[in-house]
Amino acid sequence: MRRTIDPPADVAAYPFRHRVRARFAETDAMGVVHHAAYLPWLEEGRVALLRAGGRPYTEIRAAGTDLAVIECHIAYRLPAVFDDEIDVHCLLAAPDGATFEIAYLLRRAVETIATAVTVHACLDAVTGRPQRPPGWVRDLATPLRSGSTRK
Amino acid sequence: MRRTIDPPADVAAYPFRHRVRARFAETDAMGVVHHAAYLPWLEEGRVALLRAGGRPYTEIRAAGTDLAVIECHIAYRLPAVFDDEIDVHCLLAAPDGATFEIAYLLRRAVETIATAVTVHACLDAVTGRPQRPPGWVRDLATPLRSGSTRK
Amino acid sequence: MRRTIDPPADVAAYPFRHRVRARFAETDAMGVVHHAAYLPWLEEGRVALLRAGGRPYTEIRAAGTDLAVIECHIAYRLPAVFDDEIDVHCLLAAPDGATFEIAYLLRRAVETIATAVTVHACLDAVTGRPQRPPGWVRDLATPLRSGSTRK
Amino acid sequence: MRRTIDPPADVAAYPFRHRVRARFAETDAMGVVHHAAYLPWLEEGRVALLRAGGRPYTEIRAAGTDLAVIECHIAYRLPAVFDDEIDVHCLLAAPDGATFEIAYLLRRAVETIATAVTVHACLDAVTGRPQRPPGWVRDLATPLRSGSTRK
Repeated sequence: MRRTIDPPADVAAYPFRHRVRARFAETDAMGVVHHAAYLPWLEEGRVALLRAGGRPYTEIRAAGTDLAVIECHIAYRLPAVFDDEIDVHCLLAAPDGATFEIAYLLRRAVETIATAVTVHACLDAVTGRPQRPPGWVRDLATPLRSGSTRK
Repeated sequence: MRRTIDPPADVAAYPFRHRVRARFAETDAMGVVHHAAYLPWLEEGRVALLRAGGRPYTEIRAAGTDLAVIECHIAYRLPAVFDDEIDVHCLLAAPDGATFEIAYLLRRAVETIATAVTVHACLDAVTGRPQRPPGWVRDLATPLRSGSTRK
Repeated sequence: MRRTIDPPADVAAYPFRHRVRARFAETDAMGVVHHAAYLPWLEEGRVALLRAGGRPYTEIRAAGTDLAVIECHIAYRLPAVFDDEIDVHCLLAAPDGATFEIAYLLRRAVETIATAVTVHACLDAVTGRPQRPPGWVRDLATPLRSGSTRK
Repeated sequence: MRRTIDPPADVAAYPFRHRVRARFAETDAMGVVHHAAYLPWLEEGRVALLRAGGRPYTEIRAAGTDLAVIECHIAYRLPAVFDDEIDVHCLLAAPDGATFEIAYLLRRAVETIATAVTVHACLDAVTGRPQRPPGWVRDLATPLRSGSTRK
């Protein structure tokens, strides 16, 4: 797998926050939010980060670029339950060649619920072929503190 | 709403059956399958009905027709739980102008879990404009017994 | 089916509004929001209505009552697409015996995207047996104008 | 993160196969299966593996054990599209202390679509507290060939 970063444990490392509220439809028979339901939360978070950075994903797609998820890594620390308000803290790391990574810290108030990293490729929306990440990806990136790269 | 049929209560009225198994991801914190999870089961059922009728939905779409859901009506009779095997019985009713309807009876062994009707429009896949249902829709239709039309 | 009301077409008939934003995960290969994704939006809307009415669903459940969906009726008028902001207007109708109904009008700005009605039963959360709707259900109900009952 | 294994690239390393078919509801506006839809496929695969191994998850839960997902790692290699038949190959690795891991290889015919690893904790279904994995977890485990452990 290509992931090169670890999600920082310190909330202060994240420049952006997006809040979601757990839907009843997202719970399962264990009484908690199902693990698959977190992935759309991460997606909501990064879509909000792009919008806040002046790069709405609708415009990225209209300009001919798809941002494909090529890896997803998530660690579930504490269960979330129905109606929880969860802060999805996001950090876009500098691109490395054809891919870039986003780190996530999910918290309910000050409790860490989950951490995650997604790896993205930029694709030509018509041909599906990989593109170099546009310049704005680097512009939106946050420098990582030491200790958050995996080697 | 446009629905004109009621789903027959008698399983013998349905010419086609497709079996699904309830996923854990489809359950909710009440311990039963979430009501929204039934709609993909109906969809699986009608996709299987089209395939069995020699009209795979992939080919319908490749030929330029989308089948949009314009109404969905569902009555939940008994809860389904994780790992239940559910038979989705389907019946495609004769088209009426620009739309056609599909009725569903969902059973776990001989117990009725739910009944449903979906109303579909045929759309040009490129322009999104309504089309008359292709001839094969009428060919796949099952005559409805008296008592299953709503007026 | 038990539904007795039609969703009013006039937004002024609805006392409550909840906004959702279409997730990319909710779209499908037709390029629009998948029809099954609307049901969690309706659920978000009624959960927000209950919260605003001083009856958070978490407290209803903690007090021993589950609100089961026993019917769902939805008509899709115009497609919704990724990132659309959709207003889910909700109206809780007066209970009739053991069940009550909620009507919905979904709009993107002033365009009607969909209308819906859900029918609910109150269940004892432990035994799963039907209960009479608690008094607060009637307190939260909005009188329906003539023309919105089905007979 | 706790993951200690890499998913073998060789299909012969996997003792179990479960087939799923991509639902239209699982696609997104890129025209491919949405990345979040793979997690329920992994879940279907491991539920089928447990059933085939004589340990249906319904019985595990009835016996008082929940198997929580504490990590999920997935790499998407090639897009899957609507109606694809995908083989979910699964391998349960020997437990290590309080957790165990499952590796997955997803293929469409002979093409690798995705690989994944999930990490699981055994929880007391009533208290939610971690348990040592029951003996049958070790009984169902497959030895890993050298090269599939991460250190």
